[in-house]
Amino acid sequence: MSIELSNEDAVPEVPGFLFSGLSAGIKKNGNPDLALAVATTESATCAAVLTTNLVRAAPVEITAASMKKSRGAFRAVVVNSGNANACTGAVGMKEALRVRDAVADALESEPHEVLPASTGVIGAILPGERIVASVPELVNQLRPDGAADFARAIMTTDQWRKVAVASFAMGKERVTVLGIAKGAGMIHPNMATTLGYVFTDARVPAAALSRLLRRAVDATFNRISVDGDTSTNDTIVLAASGMCRAKTDEKKLERAVTDVLSALGESIVRDGEGAKHVVRFEVSGLANDADAAKAARTIATSPLVKTAVHGKDANWGRILAAAGRSGAKFDPKKARIEIGGVRIVEGGMPVGKEAEAKAAEIMASPRYTVWVVLGRGKGKAHYLTCDLGTEYIAVNANYRS
Amino acid sequence: MSIELSNEDAVPEVPGFLFSGLSAGIKKNGNPDLALAVATTESATCAAVLTTNLVRAAPVEITAASMKKSRGAFRAVVVNSGNANACTGAVGMKEALRVRDAVADALESEPHEVLPASTGVIGAILPGERIVASVPELVNQLRPDGAADFARAIMTTDQWRKVAVASFAMGKERVTVLGIAKGAGMIHPNMATTLGYVFTDARVPAAALSRLLRRAVDATFNRISVDGDTSTNDTIVLAASGMCRAKTDEKKLERAVTDVLSALGESIVRDGEGAKHVVRFEVSGLANDADAAKAARTIATSPLVKTAVHGKDANWGRILAAAGRSGAKFDPKKARIEIGGVRIVEGGMPVGKEAEAKAAEIMASPRYTVWVVLGRGKGKAHYLTCDLGTEYIAVNANYRS
Repeated sequence: MSIELSNEDAVPEVPGFLFSGLSAGIKKNGNPDLALAVATTESATCAAVLTTNLVRAAPVEITAASMKKSRGAFRAVVVNSGNANACTGAVGMKEALRVRDAVADALESEPHEVLPASTGVIGAILPGERIVASVPELVNQLRPDGAADFARAIMTTDQWRKVAVASFAMGKERVTVLGIAKGAGMIHPNMATTLGYVFTDARVPAAALSRLLRRAVDATFNRISVDGDTSTNDTIVLAASGMCRAKTDEKKLERAVTDVLSALGESIVRDGEGAKHVVRFEVSGLANDADAAKAARTIATSPLVKTAVHGKDANWGRILAAAGRSGAKFDPKKARIEIGGVRIVEGGMPVGKEAEAKAAEIMASPRYTVWVVLGRGKGKAHYLTCDLGTEYIAVNANYRS
Repeated sequence: MSIELSNEDAVPEVPGFLFSGLSAGIKKNGNPDLALAVATTESATCAAVLTTNLVRAAPVEITAASMKKSRGAFRAVVVNSGNANACTGAVGMKEALRVRDAVADALESEPHEVLPASTGVIGAILPGERIVASVPELVNQLRPDGAADFARAIMTTDQWRKVAVASFAMGKERVTVLGIAKGAGMIHPNMATTLGYVFTDARVPAAALSRLLRRAVDATFNRISVDGDTSTNDTIVLAASGMCRAKTDEKKLERAVTDVLSALGESIVRDGEGAKHVVRFEVSGLANDADAAKAARTIATSPLVKTAVHGKDANWGRILAAAGRSGAKFDPKKARIEIGGVRIVEGGMPVGKEAEAKAAEIMASPRYTVWVVLGRGKGKAHYLTCDLGTEYIAVNANYRS
């Protein structure tokens, strides 16, 4: 399987999908802020994973209801940036439906087969009329190689477009999996926050897509963190056009979707405001994967661990203390910690100053792995995080001013 | 009941207790680092609440084992600062026992009635010999009005001593409750972290003391946060000399202990490195207190809420989003948020820019309350937190260098 993370203008096409993106005047600075992706086949299917936050934006509510109604039949996604349409009550809902219906009309589609999404500031009313006025041009610009425009138009504070592509052979054909995401980490729940779209020409029933997407998201987007805050708008959609005639091997497709989401997830963490280091914590030796996930998540989201990462300080005491409060069961006396290839803790005790100095050198690099071995069990889990620096504070303390 | 937070040198005495503090040469800068408190009565009792972290320092392990053995009989606490004696293996345990036994010998006490505690850097071996050499002088300096010296000697990065006193009438006598704590917030788990001692002349069986302390800690120290990290050394001890002859009303004592711990807890949050604002989140309207506590804790520990507090930004979207991901059940459409007396969210939607500007003025003050009403249920909870500023990063990124 080949996997490629692309920030170039040239984005591969996916048979059965058209894309477009333009400026509808939602953002004050005139940057692109409206995106559309449309399936050209009648039998396209989709699956979605939505935010677990109880506070859900209007388009998330609409998507949840539509998915039940459509049973996974898919026509289009329409996404705006610059406005999250969250905490906007009945008015926000009305505006979201207005946009959704305008797109469905233009595409001659069932309304519930068009999934809307929004990302931007919470609590501001979506300018539905302005968006609706741009829909004809948005539809007019649809083209097979328009994914770069789509990716550009869903960005908020992102520093770069996030696009990843994988493909694999299926008989004499190739299946393509194209992923597009936005998010400068979870550090912007007000820019609310992560949106991810994966398009494939595979031929898969909606129920299988749904199972596969859940597992892939759990292994990727559910294991990245910038600050542990969950947004009101998080949405990931996997859509399959079915243009590839060969029956798709679901295992291979899951692998490709996982690889694409993994690449996008790492790109999001790398784009975290102020982030200088992406760190992968590999936790193992626990009784089961659930305990390992608890420990990995607590380590990766600890402000003290993240500030130590920022300071390039091999402060293993903070890593061990975070694991200790995570709820995972282990014997601290058996703990081993390695940064890069350097062992700094053995038997729950420090190896020495020399090892810590070596580890500090590795911590100067933009990406490295920390192994935390907490026993001899088979339970393991990973978590991807970034450092917590002063820029994070500057951005988030003064975000709205 | 009178309650008083005292930073002055004059500290009230508690009948039945003697205190001392001096420099034993553990800290490089020569500041006081060894403290002793001794009960003068034979029938003194105690209760303790220890860290829930799986990684526990040697003195915490000793205290846990001793409490089982002694069934709450109490003679003394001996505390050093400058060294946490955590993650130090068998050697650390040996050194801790050595100090504990030297104090027990000097006081002619059962060893397990002397409770040791340590606070400071993790992973360094405790200089037991040096400490033992200071024990005779430490015992020699014991005096009824020595609590200020005790308080000074347990400080690490604290900017001020943390002492609070409450008293209440019991028949013709008065019961005194004296609390002493250390901690510049949970932001220093490497300075590992919160120690709290409460001394009273009340006459209370150990079992009742234990119940009462647990409830008081749950209402106070378990509801403060600087960064959500739990230390390896947290210890709170409540000791009662029984010098007050009247049988003590447990309700009144619990109230006094709660007030004292509440005052100490607030002092700790105020002393959080870089903290400019102490904020009390009052969450109500949930189905039960447990749900309210979940929401309050998640709001108070959210980096995004804490950076907004730092920036004096009435960013209610972050508060609502944090409550939404907390696991508490509520209808976001019924949410109401008030900062100080200013309502900024009603029915889950913003009241308006004018209200937010007014709220921002209140957020300039060093201490204020935010009410988060999430429905009409009777469940409520509070949480005390401080802002997250750039100083926090500076201190924690470069802590060991």
